[in-house]
Amino acid sequence: MDVGVIGGSGYGGAELLRLLAGHPAFKVRVVAGGRTAGQPIGDVFPHLAATPLADERIVTADADDLRDCAVVFAATPHEVSLELLPALLGEGRTVVDLSGAFRLPAAQFDEWYGIGHTAPELTPAVYGLPELWRAELPGAELIAGPGCYPTAALLALAPLAGLVAEGPIVVSGMSGWSGAGRGLRDDLHASHAHGNVAPYGAPRHRHTPEIAQQFAALGGPAARVSFVPHLVPMTRGEVVTCTAPLRDGVTGAGLRDAVADRYGDEPFVTVLSAGTWPQSTHVVGANTAHVAVAVDERARTAIAACALDNLVKGAAGQAIQAANVATGTAETAGLPIAGLYP
Amino acid sequence: MDVGVIGGSGYGGAELLRLLAGHPAFKVRVVAGGRTAGQPIGDVFPHLAATPLADERIVTADADDLRDCAVVFAATPHEVSLELLPALLGEGRTVVDLSGAFRLPAAQFDEWYGIGHTAPELTPAVYGLPELWRAELPGAELIAGPGCYPTAALLALAPLAGLVAEGPIVVSGMSGWSGAGRGLRDDLHASHAHGNVAPYGAPRHRHTPEIAQQFAALGGPAARVSFVPHLVPMTRGEVVTCTAPLRDGVTGAGLRDAVADRYGDEPFVTVLSAGTWPQSTHVVGANTAHVAVAVDERARTAIAACALDNLVKGAAGQAIQAANVATGTAETAGLPIAGLYP
Amino acid sequence: MDVGVIGGSGYGGAELLRLLAGHPAFKVRVVAGGRTAGQPIGDVFPHLAATPLADERIVTADADDLRDCAVVFAATPHEVSLELLPALLGEGRTVVDLSGAFRLPAAQFDEWYGIGHTAPELTPAVYGLPELWRAELPGAELIAGPGCYPTAALLALAPLAGLVAEGPIVVSGMSGWSGAGRGLRDDLHASHAHGNVAPYGAPRHRHTPEIAQQFAALGGPAARVSFVPHLVPMTRGEVVTCTAPLRDGVTGAGLRDAVADRYGDEPFVTVLSAGTWPQSTHVVGANTAHVAVAVDERARTAIAACALDNLVKGAAGQAIQAANVATGTAETAGLPIAGLYP
Amino acid sequence: MDVGVIGGSGYGGAELLRLLAGHPAFKVRVVAGGRTAGQPIGDVFPHLAATPLADERIVTADADDLRDCAVVFAATPHEVSLELLPALLGEGRTVVDLSGAFRLPAAQFDEWYGIGHTAPELTPAVYGLPELWRAELPGAELIAGPGCYPTAALLALAPLAGLVAEGPIVVSGMSGWSGAGRGLRDDLHASHAHGNVAPYGAPRHRHTPEIAQQFAALGGPAARVSFVPHLVPMTRGEVVTCTAPLRDGVTGAGLRDAVADRYGDEPFVTVLSAGTWPQSTHVVGANTAHVAVAVDERARTAIAACALDNLVKGAAGQAIQAANVATGTAETAGLPIAGLYP
Repeated sequence: MDVGVIGGSGYGGAELLRLLAGHPAFKVRVVAGGRTAGQPIGDVFPHLAATPLADERIVTADADDLRDCAVVFAATPHEVSLELLPALLGEGRTVVDLSGAFRLPAAQFDEWYGIGHTAPELTPAVYGLPELWRAELPGAELIAGPGCYPTAALLALAPLAGLVAEGPIVVSGMSGWSGAGRGLRDDLHASHAHGNVAPYGAPRHRHTPEIAQQFAALGGPAARVSFVPHLVPMTRGEVVTCTAPLRDGVTGAGLRDAVADRYGDEPFVTVLSAGTWPQSTHVVGANTAHVAVAVDERARTAIAACALDNLVKGAAGQAIQAANVATGTAETAGLPIAGLYP
Repeated sequence: MDVGVIGGSGYGGAELLRLLAGHPAFKVRVVAGGRTAGQPIGDVFPHLAATPLADERIVTADADDLRDCAVVFAATPHEVSLELLPALLGEGRTVVDLSGAFRLPAAQFDEWYGIGHTAPELTPAVYGLPELWRAELPGAELIAGPGCYPTAALLALAPLAGLVAEGPIVVSGMSGWSGAGRGLRDDLHASHAHGNVAPYGAPRHRHTPEIAQQFAALGGPAARVSFVPHLVPMTRGEVVTCTAPLRDGVTGAGLRDAVADRYGDEPFVTVLSAGTWPQSTHVVGANTAHVAVAVDERARTAIAACALDNLVKGAAGQAIQAANVATGTAETAGLPIAGLYP
Repeated sequence: MDVGVIGGSGYGGAELLRLLAGHPAFKVRVVAGGRTAGQPIGDVFPHLAATPLADERIVTADADDLRDCAVVFAATPHEVSLELLPALLGEGRTVVDLSGAFRLPAAQFDEWYGIGHTAPELTPAVYGLPELWRAELPGAELIAGPGCYPTAALLALAPLAGLVAEGPIVVSGMSGWSGAGRGLRDDLHASHAHGNVAPYGAPRHRHTPEIAQQFAALGGPAARVSFVPHLVPMTRGEVVTCTAPLRDGVTGAGLRDAVADRYGDEPFVTVLSAGTWPQSTHVVGANTAHVAVAVDERARTAIAACALDNLVKGAAGQAIQAANVATGTAETAGLPIAGLYP
Repeated sequence: MDVGVIGGSGYGGAELLRLLAGHPAFKVRVVAGGRTAGQPIGDVFPHLAATPLADERIVTADADDLRDCAVVFAATPHEVSLELLPALLGEGRTVVDLSGAFRLPAAQFDEWYGIGHTAPELTPAVYGLPELWRAELPGAELIAGPGCYPTAALLALAPLAGLVAEGPIVVSGMSGWSGAGRGLRDDLHASHAHGNVAPYGAPRHRHTPEIAQQFAALGGPAARVSFVPHLVPMTRGEVVTCTAPLRDGVTGAGLRDAVADRYGDEPFVTVLSAGTWPQSTHVVGANTAHVAVAVDERARTAIAACALDNLVKGAAGQAIQAANVATGTAETAGLPIAGLYP
């Protein structure tokens, strides 16, 4: 199948290209970008300089070229996705958007993103988190790739939906810088960022309603999700730790059973042994998430944590996984399951 | 005043020596250590090789030498503090212990540290967090230096004691590796730790009862403190983010006023403007803590964060600050208020 | 082809397993290790926990198991390679040793490694750097995988063999920590290593004679190679910068032509444009080396630099590449050519 | 003495402010900056928010304000120094420029900096490296603060001036990012820079003629200095390793004696024991340099290395040290001699 990638100048796009280079069924035919249009891919991204894509030039995002593709991935800002993607729908094409443009109902999008949605009839799109919404993916035309934090938070929380009580669910996220993109910012200057932990965005980070909406869809008491993300000093990887009040009678063993039941057969989710917490270094470069849960008996809370690579399972890898399912390709095709360690 | 430092082989001891080298009233007379006894300080710690202490040899911890000191700092494991410090009390000497040996009532110590306390009559000692318990310090014989996480958590939570509701208070801590000490461990191997975020210790980390006990002493609803610490990939610095259910009617402005009232005159606490969160890079090397608060209206939670240098305000610097107050020395004497940035 | 990996407890072994998991022709049948023998691979290396190897147990290095393998990779200390590998030779088996045991003639080995070689008749083995000694590899029984620094230094220097003059050739190496292995050491403690550049080993680092010997074999004036390696604060990746006196009349264009001629068709060597220097971040995770050269007109020196991933092109990847050539498999089989960026 | 700092928006300026905050004889009266003019210092640099300077506003660089200062430090780009500083000379004022504007003779400046010098009569200014040119500093009106690489290279090479032979002297520099300043650049984006070693600037880095000129002034054979700097992934600190052909008959002991003779009484230079190389982590935050030398007998080269903090001994600290000497203040006044470790 021919595929197109829009947003080839950014980290998400580059990661799609890295992964698609080894995909057995998808072949990259068009790479579109903004500020880098006209340049060979190998010049923009020297880490791809030895791949067959190296001499291909990035084109401007032009629907005609992309119309020849069976699958289109958009790793673009949400404004750009809003502008480009509606015209690409139909004709049996699968479009996977990595931005936040189509994850929320239009009204919520307007509130949290501060702009008016221009294609409300397309929202919310199918949510491309296969472990939790696999059945909705086959044949989907528009797939909203989840945010990296929601992916991790939902993989951690999903098995607990029936086990936690009403009350604040605290989601503490810690992500490497690559999730913030390739643009230059004072707080991403290496000298500033290197030895730095920085909470940001709270209490109005846009991933908050996304986590709440999807957890509610799973039956969880999501009204009071309180999310605080932090930039931590590394390039890739992410850990999300969720703490929720526990229903009476629920034990640590009960939590662990729920997690094991949910993920026992999942190729991309590893449930860790009791007493072990996930570490981001074990999943960097892989489409794999590590999950663990425990009960804090003293506080009567459930603690659930998930580690993943924000650019793979949290973005490009998961988008390919969703496209695999949507197109009837083997779900694991082209996706690394071993991390790059150390 | 002559001072002694026990535990001179570790990071806490080394930081005491670095800071005491510039103290106007305290003069290091004895440095005692374990595995490095007999070696010159400049060989053990080349960063001190150009200081006057460089050629002084580390001695074994021997009460006689230390008895000539007016102030003794112990940066030792809690077992060692338990063994050595009771014999040093009295004679007007000020002893500041950086370990957990004397922070909790003996029964709680036994439960959380897993050994029987051998000097229960000394517990709990005066808690050496001057901003919150300053009045108890003058003339104190035994001061328990707070843990780094409790220092940050309590500086963030203290002003909120009357403003938060019953229910879980989630304390998410992120610390650099130096808090874990100088001993060799697989998870502190540079290749493993470098790009890694790792939750650990939850739900039974020993700082949990310490945070709860002290927050309760301030009048806070501390019964359900749920604490999850994380190692993040940097050497120094720490951020603690606390999320607590909010009492009805409390607003963001109300929280900010409470913080400003509490810390307006504190030389070592900087309250950040609304909308700004503390970043650890701004306090590395300094005895300064940065604090900020906000309300998550949607979840009805208070979010309170604090950044500090775990080895300075979280350990050695705060110990000196407490000793300053205890001995009638100017509270800021010898303590850096500017961080090393970038 | 069935393959065995000895040294599965270390970083080199783990990297072999990561790469071999995706190899189309080699199938891992036996993984032998020392301190981790008896444990499942997924427990020892959680980054492999989602791979088919996860539940396989590491065995002790036992020749009988390994005798069923057509290819054996040894990522073992040189003493262990010396002890185990001679018994595995013959029967058409290809043995690739990643240690220094068989790279040098026995007498040189004795001098630089400080122990007596016990199989001098096997030294020097075929040097497994395919770009420079490809013709010697097909059918080789014992292949000495080059050191990471020699790989980078030789890829940079090889095209210059006839263009540089007698006199010191200065090789300045900068490597991430993973090259130093998984063992615990004070200088690899994360808190110490994190913000640290540390020259080490000079002037007697064991890679010195290896660089000199192989550069001499290429016709270079190698008598005065002077090598200074440095640990730099990152986990993976390596840059080697070589500076050599230039022959009269040689220009920058001449150097660049020589490099382009040498590497024009190499799948794993990318020659950078004039004015660009290689950066390690572009090759992490890949079996690709980036090379660039320039003339310092003022000093009349040639400067040649190479960046690679010390665990891939500098170790495990190159070993597989050499085994591919030795066994008649496609040279690029199973080897990543795109780096993990950022 | 009242002092002024121009360039208060950058890292060099901020470091001057951090150090001057604790200086016993210098008091900061004016802080001038460009893009941050009008802002309080504590807002621009939150690490200074708890210092007395926090509420002072940065002014535009205006000679009248600065004329009331006995000492003026300029941490400005060379173009700005060229424009502002000549008007500040005279009236007994000491001006220390941290840029490259006045280090070289005007003709060399023109060649290496690519612009015409507008005050050639002021070049070269007194070179502010006290350990090597102390006698020229008392009463100096214009002092050119050395570059960070030249400081390290010259401290390493100075004792060897009479011991090395003609031929290329290779200077390999490795610096943290802070030396590249606070401006935003793609190669300083945290995600790019974090795990990256990057040679740059060779063979035309502007520090090359500075090293050569000053080494020649010390009697060294400087005609063929060949300098390759590298950015390494850390914020602060720098190591320079120099390799030079050795004169016949010179031994390692001879080198070490020369170094010990040169630096035996220097408060800010620590000579390491034979067999030990300097590590940048031991000098971060201090005005101290660590130096070591060795002979490579095989290659007949001298290897000399120096570690320092590029912002302290390589910039702001050394500027204060030079101003101390120039103004008759104690040379060590206000300067930290212990590093921040770990």
